Amino acid sequence: MYEKIKLLATEYFPETVQIRRDFHKYAERGWLEMRTASIIARKLENLGYQVSAGKELMREEFRMGLPNKRILTINYKRALLQGADPYYLEKVKDGFTAVAGIIRNGEGPVVAIRFDIDALSITEDDSTNHNPGKFGFVSCNPGAMHACGHDGHSAIGLTVAKILAKIRENLHGTIKLIFQPAEEGVRGAKSIATSGILDDVDYIFAGHIWQQAPDEDYDIYLGMDETFATTKLDVIYHGVSSHAAGMPQFGKNALLSAASCILNLHSIPRNSDGCTRINVGTINAGTGRNVVPETAKLEIEVRGATTELNNYMEVYARDIIQGSALMHDTIVEIKQMGKAYSLECDKKMMDIIHDVCDEHLKNVKVAPRYLSPLDGSDDFSYMMATVQAHGGIGTYMKLTTDLVASPHNCAFDFDEKVLLTGTTVYSCVAYYLLNNIEKK
Amino acid sequence: MYEKIKLLATEYFPETVQIRRDFHKYAERGWLEMRTASIIARKLENLGYQVSAGKELMREEFRMGLPNKRILTINYKRALLQGADPYYLEKVKDGFTAVAGIIRNGEGPVVAIRFDIDALSITEDDSTNHNPGKFGFVSCNPGAMHACGHDGHSAIGLTVAKILAKIRENLHGTIKLIFQPAEEGVRGAKSIATSGILDDVDYIFAGHIWQQAPDEDYDIYLGMDETFATTKLDVIYHGVSSHAAGMPQFGKNALLSAASCILNLHSIPRNSDGCTRINVGTINAGTGRNVVPETAKLEIEVRGATTELNNYMEVYARDIIQGSALMHDTIVEIKQMGKAYSLECDKKMMDIIHDVCDEHLKNVKVAPRYLSPLDGSDDFSYMMATVQAHGGIGTYMKLTTDLVASPHNCAFDFDEKVLLTGTTVYSCVAYYLLNNIEKK
Amino acid sequence: MYEKIKLLATEYFPETVQIRRDFHKYAERGWLEMRTASIIARKLENLGYQVSAGKELMREEFRMGLPNKRILTINYKRALLQGADPYYLEKVKDGFTAVAGIIRNGEGPVVAIRFDIDALSITEDDSTNHNPGKFGFVSCNPGAMHACGHDGHSAIGLTVAKILAKIRENLHGTIKLIFQPAEEGVRGAKSIATSGILDDVDYIFAGHIWQQAPDEDYDIYLGMDETFATTKLDVIYHGVSSHAAGMPQFGKNALLSAASCILNLHSIPRNSDGCTRINVGTINAGTGRNVVPETAKLEIEVRGATTELNNYMEVYARDIIQGSALMHDTIVEIKQMGKAYSLECDKKMMDIIHDVCDEHLKNVKVAPRYLSPLDGSDDFSYMMATVQAHGGIGTYMKLTTDLVASPHNCAFDFDEKVLLTGTTVYSCVAYYLLNNIEKK
Amino acid sequence: MYEKIKLLATEYFPETVQIRRDFHKYAERGWLEMRTASIIARKLENLGYQVSAGKELMREEFRMGLPNKRILTINYKRALLQGADPYYLEKVKDGFTAVAGIIRNGEGPVVAIRFDIDALSITEDDSTNHNPGKFGFVSCNPGAMHACGHDGHSAIGLTVAKILAKIRENLHGTIKLIFQPAEEGVRGAKSIATSGILDDVDYIFAGHIWQQAPDEDYDIYLGMDETFATTKLDVIYHGVSSHAAGMPQFGKNALLSAASCILNLHSIPRNSDGCTRINVGTINAGTGRNVVPETAKLEIEVRGATTELNNYMEVYARDIIQGSALMHDTIVEIKQMGKAYSLECDKKMMDIIHDVCDEHLKNVKVAPRYLSPLDGSDDFSYMMATVQAHGGIGTYMKLTTDLVASPHNCAFDFDEKVLLTGTTVYSCVAYYLLNNIEKK
Repeated sequence: MYEKIKLLATEYFPETVQIRRDFHKYAERGWLEMRTASIIARKLENLGYQVSAGKELMREEFRMGLPNKRILTINYKRALLQGADPYYLEKVKDGFTAVAGIIRNGEGPVVAIRFDIDALSITEDDSTNHNPGKFGFVSCNPGAMHACGHDGHSAIGLTVAKILAKIRENLHGTIKLIFQPAEEGVRGAKSIATSGILDDVDYIFAGHIWQQAPDEDYDIYLGMDETFATTKLDVIYHGVSSHAAGMPQFGKNALLSAASCILNLHSIPRNSDGCTRINVGTINAGTGRNVVPETAKLEIEVRGATTELNNYMEVYARDIIQGSALMHDTIVEIKQMGKAYSLECDKKMMDIIHDVCDEHLKNVKVAPRYLSPLDGSDDFSYMMATVQAHGGIGTYMKLTTDLVASPHNCAFDFDEKVLLTGTTVYSCVAYYLLNNIEKK
Repeated sequence: MYEKIKLLATEYFPETVQIRRDFHKYAERGWLEMRTASIIARKLENLGYQVSAGKELMREEFRMGLPNKRILTINYKRALLQGADPYYLEKVKDGFTAVAGIIRNGEGPVVAIRFDIDALSITEDDSTNHNPGKFGFVSCNPGAMHACGHDGHSAIGLTVAKILAKIRENLHGTIKLIFQPAEEGVRGAKSIATSGILDDVDYIFAGHIWQQAPDEDYDIYLGMDETFATTKLDVIYHGVSSHAAGMPQFGKNALLSAASCILNLHSIPRNSDGCTRINVGTINAGTGRNVVPETAKLEIEVRGATTELNNYMEVYARDIIQGSALMHDTIVEIKQMGKAYSLECDKKMMDIIHDVCDEHLKNVKVAPRYLSPLDGSDDFSYMMATVQAHGGIGTYMKLTTDLVASPHNCAFDFDEKVLLTGTTVYSCVAYYLLNNIEKK
Repeated sequence: MYEKIKLLATEYFPETVQIRRDFHKYAERGWLEMRTASIIARKLENLGYQVSAGKELMREEFRMGLPNKRILTINYKRALLQGADPYYLEKVKDGFTAVAGIIRNGEGPVVAIRFDIDALSITEDDSTNHNPGKFGFVSCNPGAMHACGHDGHSAIGLTVAKILAKIRENLHGTIKLIFQPAEEGVRGAKSIATSGILDDVDYIFAGHIWQQAPDEDYDIYLGMDETFATTKLDVIYHGVSSHAAGMPQFGKNALLSAASCILNLHSIPRNSDGCTRINVGTINAGTGRNVVPETAKLEIEVRGATTELNNYMEVYARDIIQGSALMHDTIVEIKQMGKAYSLECDKKMMDIIHDVCDEHLKNVKVAPRYLSPLDGSDDFSYMMATVQAHGGIGTYMKLTTDLVASPHNCAFDFDEKVLLTGTTVYSCVAYYLLNNIEKK
Repeated sequence: MYEKIKLLATEYFPETVQIRRDFHKYAERGWLEMRTASIIARKLENLGYQVSAGKELMREEFRMGLPNKRILTINYKRALLQGADPYYLEKVKDGFTAVAGIIRNGEGPVVAIRFDIDALSITEDDSTNHNPGKFGFVSCNPGAMHACGHDGHSAIGLTVAKILAKIRENLHGTIKLIFQPAEEGVRGAKSIATSGILDDVDYIFAGHIWQQAPDEDYDIYLGMDETFATTKLDVIYHGVSSHAAGMPQFGKNALLSAASCILNLHSIPRNSDGCTRINVGTINAGTGRNVVPETAKLEIEVRGATTELNNYMEVYARDIIQGSALMHDTIVEIKQMGKAYSLECDKKMMDIIHDVCDEHLKNVKVAPRYLSPLDGSDDFSYMMATVQAHGGIGTYMKLTTDLVASPHNCAFDFDEKVLLTGTTVYSCVAYYLLNNIEKK
């Protein structure tokens, strides 16, 4: 059967590439992946999956950092024009762009795989220096670009869906393929993780296309560490404007609150339990040189090497944010724009994948040390933690390849062969888990 | 002759109003008054004035706070389409929008009057609640509005020009009518004051349309006090961006420099010699939540009740700005965007105007206390100080009337009768100064 | 009668000087004036005054900035050794060092005079360069010195008491001579002003020995302006200490609260209604280089040209102080250590003194402009405001003379002739007010 | 021979204890260890060592954090009274309290051992709850206590000296026993490390008495990691005082510089290369509530897990310190009060000690993982780095035991059996290195 899966993956590879390039061309940012999600849902339905999409799959109140109504409406129209599936478009519009395809095949474990689908706020380089330019699939949506490989993840997901559908008779248990919106900014996973879809999941995994490490040529790393739990906050100080020369005392200076906040946030003590981070990435305040600033808006993030360390940072930061408002009698609004736990990959899950590759996928080079650093955050951690909370296990892999330009760069691209690796490994692991119950 | 002047002013009044409404409709912001300035120059030439415009009248390096090339070009085209005088447009383009009209009539003193011509960055209310809406002269240029009466000042200036041209045979000496750009933000006067045009001036004055004080009904106040000397600075911190989680230590955080700067600027000690002011009106910094901010731009102003107090503030502020850069190893760029001295009106000049009104303009109600508070800044102070530096005298009057809405408001308007008062008083004072040498 | 008063003042002058030098030698700081107060009380009793002292005259809870129990006990013993009156010592111990002497003589107005009695925390220069050194009355109490003339004020007070006692048959109404402790730091007046003693007072005045103004040689100025209302606060942040390398996160850093507080206090906006001041005069924080600071103590003062401006500053400052605690999760303790209103001298009261001097005291040179700047604060303002609140009037005079060294200097001294002037003027004004009811 | 060493150590043990208790009783703080150092020197001389003491052994300019002249003089007298050796007292006075004893025995390697000798600024608990109280060797010097075991280190050092002197004929090479002052505050080692004494050293080691880890019962750990490089700075801002109400603008506010410095120091970015620390442990500023603070003194320390990380912190901190001065036009004085590198123990050195114990000291339980965390700083790192710089090797061991109370606590004490372990291990290792050249 492993040989059959490998053959299918190879047979379907041209289609995998075509799907990836289509998603790349019609790149859609977080919560706006209406074309992408609706097409995924349609394809899953056509393959025989039970499809869950939109509100069925998401807790509305746990979606974070949504764009405003106007942006949502504009992009709804755009998606429609760019070939969204009309039926599913209605289900995923208004910021409900999650989709899952489910196959239930009798008794057996429940296996979930996560694929993220959103693009970044970057306008793509349209020169022919990278494949998208050379082969005509540069993003046609200005300010939206798949510069982090999620187009590839989505294409792997749909190909895995096709393979598993083909061999469904040999799968004993349940498979859930989850396509997540708004991973960038760690905004989308929480609403899915809290929806109930993961409550019966025994195994969950995901992977990310990644730059090959220097002097190494492994195809996959079985897990990641050095991840950060993180919280993204928007902070808005509301004061009162006044003429700065005529009656400064009638103003309530939002910028003085903000400046105090910024300096003090950076002064949160270091923590001997592990790494922490703080950043005030942007500020915009005030309307004119001679006017006491009425509002100041800041984009902030805190991080910690563990969820506890991130909590330490977030709690301290909130005190500082509130104290800065009190100081200058301004009112402060704090919005949670994203949140992720730290990732704790299970050795048992990595052992399983290791063994599958070792026995059945000789040509996939697996890194012997299981963990490789993420040095960032991914809200897949929400899903994995949800599964782990009831005794399930999971991991988050690296699928390595050579990149053209680094992630989040306007000339980013990757070697599409990685899609074949991903498809094969994911499918084989799913098969293994649903076929070899006794072995675990 | 005073009676004749009064009659002429009344006769020309409808034209004064028409000019004011034309300038109002085609409102142009500071350094972009190309249509306004070219039309003024054309009219002055037609009246027989020797016209000085653009570079002849301005020290290029002392112009402050200019818009960028692109804005200048766009507005050049706009001015052309909106009826600018083609000949003078070429002279005043590229941020050289000052114009002066000069009559030299033999021996005698030199008298200068200043009229400011620029509009504000406000989009006008187009409802019919105020005259511009009702009578169809709302600004047709979005983001530009005469909300501070400079359209009226310009109209007074051109009518005074017409009257003085008519009686030029009775004027012994020289008259210089100076139309100044970019008074808002105190950006334009310095370049004119340093050009040489004021070097032989004996008397200089200007006036400003103003809201009538509560419970008073005077037509003019002969001078202003409680003015602020001021310096406008743009401050840009240049740092180095870096991924805030991955390698925060490789960043040089421009926002930390800026936050320190803001807090410390406000902490400059109060000064027992008089009032001082500080404001950081706007800040924009950073590009993304998870990126160490590379640049931070601040718009700052300092003020002092006297030029010395303003110097105290500016010198101290510059230390803080530099120290904040040193702290976080950023590079700081400081641009002077505007500067004005405090105004010191000469009692002798106010006495003269008082006497002219008292003897010849019985219907003009002059406030018996000479000085009325400005509570702000005007860079006419540069011109007056230049004249005073070589022994000349001057003053800055208030022309009071009822306003609709307050200055800098999108529904601002004023009772146009104030234009008649201004025209009459200015012309009579000019005549007095150039006709009655012995009396001074 | 005015002549008689002048004669008595002259006759008693040697005793006035002797009293002043005795108080100078046994200088006692605020709330510790136990010897001084008990001797004053004894003398007043001997002169036939009804004496009110200690708790009878003071609202305990409104005493501000008291020394601790240990200091009070040490100084009690010292006062006893240095000749305090044993009976009154018991009444004025424990920080109740106010004394008043009252004569009630039938119907008539109530007149109060305030004399402050405390010394400063300065160790006196014992060289013979100034009179105390030359004539042997240098303070024998280290760290306590009459460097602001209150010894002179007290001596004037007791001499006035003696004169008025002598002419008591000619006084119709009530005289209240109030000897106030702890004027330095504006700590003592509030407790007296709220005690009820001023509730029936129609006229109140006080005076202060002062350096002659340059190029002037007046003996008295009838009132003062340019006074500051002020509030003195001690602020203590209580955090938690921790090893700064081992576990910085377990500390709660009192110094970070304090540093934020200091910077933000100085950034309180300037006020267009008048002068304001802020100062953090001292800070002491922390126990060791490698320990997160557990406590930080700050001595703060705010001021305003009016009581309203001072309130603006105090309210804003308290917000900042609290916000700084919230920021770093510390607990803050705010103690009011002193408070004074601004002084508003009544023209009517100054007119009366002017007329008394003009008619009866030809040799006293009164400054023709009534008001002279104080440029500081005096909590006599509490008493005056209390009297004014129910319709009474008052003023605070300057008694000018040549000083040796400036006030608050360790070599301070003054020409004792000013004591005669003070005694004479005060007594004559009191007589005038209690003898000439119809004239007011 | 190892057996002989063990026997000697046991035989001398009572004397070891006696020496430790004597040094404990006459505890002397850093740079004041004049009694201790002079006695050590005398004993070394008596044992036949070549003694180097005071200026011969130290670079004067690299001593850090010395007490002032007055303190040095007082303690000189005290040391004399408490039984210092008169000859060596003259050599070690004035802050030159380092001593070394050297034996040169022909060809062979050079081995150095470091013993620190200073006490802490703590007044010892004199109750009988710990041995010093029970057995009468509580420190008789108030404010000085051996609360970190350096009395024990010194006692080990002198006993090792006695043993090695006894077996000197069997030692082929050179032994240098270095007794270092002022380890607390990492102030003393640099002056010794730069003196030349280490220039020919091949092997260097030291050890520290330490609390047994929970659930472990090893006698020694062969090395330490998780050490911090550190720099201790005193920062003094010098401004100008002024009356805070009368003329605030004439002041230069040292406290505003300090407050800015404090906040910004804590905001130095975290570093992804490893742990960093910052602390402002103390501040004292200002003289009075109503005076603009003229000086502010801060005690600061920075740390880094590596010398590079500490450098990052120190360089950044110095920028902030300077920038804060520039901001408020104050002058800043920065004094280096202490400095240590991070420690990098050599595996080869730890292997050697491991093997010695394994083969010859069966009863000493050596922890199988070599490294144990220090979580602090020790300027022995200066010495070890100096040796490593020319190819030598070294380590810094833990000698574990049960402690009474934690280090730096006023009730600290330890089980004296640890002295026997230390003496035995050090002597055996020294013998091994100087006897078995071929084996290395």
